[in-house]
Amino acid sequence: RIGGVKPNGAAVRPRSLVVVRAEAQAINPEIRKNEEKVVDSVLVAELSKPLTAYCRCWRSGTFPLCDGSHVKHNKATGDNVGPLLLKKQKE
Amino acid sequence: RIGGVKPNGAAVRPRSLVVVRAEAQAINPEIRKNEEKVVDSVLVAELSKPLTAYCRCWRSGTFPLCDGSHVKHNKATGDNVGPLLLKKQKE
Ligand code: FES
Ligand code: FES
Repeated sequence: RIGGVKPNGAAVRPRSLVVVRAEAQAINPEIRKNEEKVVDSVLVAELSKPLTAYCRCWRSGTFPLCDGSHVKHNKATGDNVGPLLLKKQKE
Repeated sequence: RIGGVKPNGAAVRPRSLVVVRAEAQAINPEIRKNEEKVVDSVLVAELSKPLTAYCRCWRSGTFPLCDGSHVKHNKATGDNVGPLLLKKQKE
């Protein structure tokens, strides 16, 4: 146990003990923070390319598209996030 | 300034000062953590419903689909994230 015990047997918490609790964190640091909720729509009939990657890491400079920024985020944090791929055809 | 000043004018940092630095955080707490990178593919030709919502908050119980869990995440953290909507037709 950290700390000591008083003569009467009660635990003593040392004065220097500081408890830091991790709080639930926002995952979007800066994309469209003026919007109450960032929702994007894709009309799939209008997709022009065979494959389009959409960002799920909230770090892309071309959001809602993926620009590869998830790689840097994953390296920095140990995370494992990646994009959603929209495909027009089976490959 | 927090702390005091020594007779010679040097700053004294109080012993109890603890600096806590926020570190870059993972945004995916538990989805498919055995995968190096979580990437999902959607064959848009096979979408059955007029509208399908895909999760971007990494809190959905039906990931990669959205189950509305972003609402709880946003309330708990002050965040503003939401899904990507795939639409078959203009509405
Ligand atoms: S840049 Fe965000 S998932 Fe690729
Ligand atoms: S549950 Fe994740 S965006 Fe809706």
